[in-house]
Amino acid sequence: MHDRPKSVSLDILKNGKVQILVAVNRKGVDWLKTFADIEGVKCWGVKEGKNGLGIVVCKGKAAAVYTTNRIKAAPVLYNMSSLKGEIEGIIVNSGNANAFTGKKGLENAKMMAEMLADRLGCDSTKIAVASTGVIGRQLDMKLIEMMFNEVYPKLSAGREAAEAFATAIMTTDRFPKLYSAKAGDAVVAGVAKGAGMMAPNMATMLAFIFTDADFRPDELQEMLKEAADRSFNVTVVDGDTSTNDMVLLVSTGRRKVDRKTFYNALLDVCVNLAKMMARDGEGATKLMEVVVKGAKNSEEAFKAAKTVASSLLVKTAVFGNDPNWGRIIAALGYSGIEVDEDITLDFVSDGRTVRLLEKGVATGKEGEAGELMKKSSEIRIVVDLHKGGGEGYAFGCDLTYDYVRLNAEYTT
Amino acid sequence: MHDRPKSVSLDILKNGKVQILVAVNRKGVDWLKTFADIEGVKCWGVKEGKNGLGIVVCKGKAAAVYTTNRIKAAPVLYNMSSLKGEIEGIIVNSGNANAFTGKKGLENAKMMAEMLADRLGCDSTKIAVASTGVIGRQLDMKLIEMMFNEVYPKLSAGREAAEAFATAIMTTDRFPKLYSAKAGDAVVAGVAKGAGMMAPNMATMLAFIFTDADFRPDELQEMLKEAADRSFNVTVVDGDTSTNDMVLLVSTGRRKVDRKTFYNALLDVCVNLAKMMARDGEGATKLMEVVVKGAKNSEEAFKAAKTVASSLLVKTAVFGNDPNWGRIIAALGYSGIEVDEDITLDFVSDGRTVRLLEKGVATGKEGEAGELMKKSSEIRIVVDLHKGGGEGYAFGCDLTYDYVRLNAEYTT
Repeated sequence: MHDRPKSVSLDILKNGKVQILVAVNRKGVDWLKTFADIEGVKCWGVKEGKNGLGIVVCKGKAAAVYTTNRIKAAPVLYNMSSLKGEIEGIIVNSGNANAFTGKKGLENAKMMAEMLADRLGCDSTKIAVASTGVIGRQLDMKLIEMMFNEVYPKLSAGREAAEAFATAIMTTDRFPKLYSAKAGDAVVAGVAKGAGMMAPNMATMLAFIFTDADFRPDELQEMLKEAADRSFNVTVVDGDTSTNDMVLLVSTGRRKVDRKTFYNALLDVCVNLAKMMARDGEGATKLMEVVVKGAKNSEEAFKAAKTVASSLLVKTAVFGNDPNWGRIIAALGYSGIEVDEDITLDFVSDGRTVRLLEKGVATGKEGEAGELMKKSSEIRIVVDLHKGGGEGYAFGCDLTYDYVRLNAEYTT
Repeated sequence: MHDRPKSVSLDILKNGKVQILVAVNRKGVDWLKTFADIEGVKCWGVKEGKNGLGIVVCKGKAAAVYTTNRIKAAPVLYNMSSLKGEIEGIIVNSGNANAFTGKKGLENAKMMAEMLADRLGCDSTKIAVASTGVIGRQLDMKLIEMMFNEVYPKLSAGREAAEAFATAIMTTDRFPKLYSAKAGDAVVAGVAKGAGMMAPNMATMLAFIFTDADFRPDELQEMLKEAADRSFNVTVVDGDTSTNDMVLLVSTGRRKVDRKTFYNALLDVCVNLAKMMARDGEGATKLMEVVVKGAKNSEEAFKAAKTVASSLLVKTAVFGNDPNWGRIIAALGYSGIEVDEDITLDFVSDGRTVRLLEKGVATGKEGEAGELMKKSSEIRIVVDLHKGGGEGYAFGCDLTYDYVRLNAEYTT
């Protein structure tokens, strides 16, 4: 279950316009679906200035993973205490994170849930709530209600609805994030917001993933946890973890699929949503993928990959098209895993590979690797530690002037 | 022994010229000493272009702490295997880190030790070796020998000699780093190199501290370890740890001082050398000090302070003079310590305090805090968690355009 998903083209921004990714199934047949094309799922959203509201109606079973930050936003606390494996809808606002808002914040999160529950005629414990935006301010509940009344009547299926929802939940995102994959006869399709490097207001990462594949909540939970660990949790931002992060998985349960097929599709969706966030990282110009092979075990491999992708020195080197292997070696050295100088290191891009280290010996091909980096907006750093069979990976982006500008110029 | 040392003015760069810090003893008498004013210590150094060599002759007892990076440079490996508590001299080169250089690198490190040992008529196991500079290249031993022959005859005591050594070991440092403190009748005086945010070539941090206070090697080791943990190890850079980091403590053993007095002076020296490195951080415009009070214990307090000082979002906010307390709260939340919303937060600078949070309630004084930040090149962020009596601190600097420029434009 630990296979790295096949790389999928991420040409989502063509001529400045968003392209829904086209997933290709194993028989090579193109197809195009969004989460709102799954039977039983309807949605809509509005965005007015910095504020937005999105709603999804989706009766089914649910699983969720939440931020590990000790200070959790009100909607996270609400879901953690009320959502129990059965779900009927999701309500998300953007522009205000409803975080660090105390008791009143919790009441407001509950009010958001009740707003949707009342219309659906269900208990408010079956509604998931999410918020993203500035922290430390109370929600404007009149605005929420106004937007709710605008969105609710428009709930519908299909791609237009999915895009409306995806756009409504954006904050500093440059493009909405949708991705779909086939799992046998079933579909796994997700929508996410998040700008990788952590947006000024702590860049909440939200992802909502839907499927018609039938699994019990405990199965969904187990698979979601693992898939999140192998995707969102290895997408390295600046190490800052939001108070609002949340990934939700909903199954409408209409199709039978075997577990392995489903998990692979789920992981594929999670990885590609995560990559979109890294690509949309604040100020980012390059998507970076770090692959570590030959580690003692996969845990060490993932740890090492994440450490390299987190290194500011590596991130700035990627920005500068500088194949500075010394920084990569140093990061591997302090990652805490078993490593010695016997390292093989490749830079890979657009199907071309330049080897910089061959079992610890420098090849002197820095110039060639630098040229490779200049030509591409995606760079894969592949390390072989020659210690065992462990493999792992991590995603990240470069650290640029624009990252500093965006985060230094932001004012509360 | 955990007292935070009193803050000492860091006006080391006046009119572009380096000022040796003037330490003030308890009776208010100014005095000015460098490590080369300690009886029994002589040194000198040369710097030619990017390459430099410095020598210290200092018969005494020694203790050392080394980088935790699994990939250790040859001089680190040499010292770890040979230096045993007795020392006669130190030889340091800058320009080449002698790291990732395999067996030949180890031989070269030993040759450096032997060069000095031969002249001093001692065993080469009594010589400490250090290197800093580019990694992955073999030392030019002819150049090392040439510089050695230039430096050795000039070994002398006094301030000029200390400055020559301090300058010789610099790499991307903008100024040499010297600091001294009194410990009763004894002196503790140090010299360091390192540019806080990690210089392009992985910014080795080297510090050499000398004293005439008499302690056994095991006592020196214990106190050095603790002082390093409370100074260099809480000076947050970008998280990257060099393969060459080393702190050496040498005692000539000529004066008796009680242990507490000595430790406080040692900590003072370590903290101020660490602060100089943070201030000299690549591209840094501001020194940042984070103080965490009211934690469950001091371990949690140090952990939280270090996490805040490491946050890229906090670092960019400091650069932008943005008192963005949400980012500080978030960092506290993911630091892994016990914390809730009941936080008091002050920004302190130039003796003025602006309270931003009072037990979890925002005071709305962001404007005032922003003005305070604009006026100063030092900002202290003071957090009270109201959980217990634990106190800790960390040092760091802001993240600026120049950091990105320096590290992206560097080429191997």
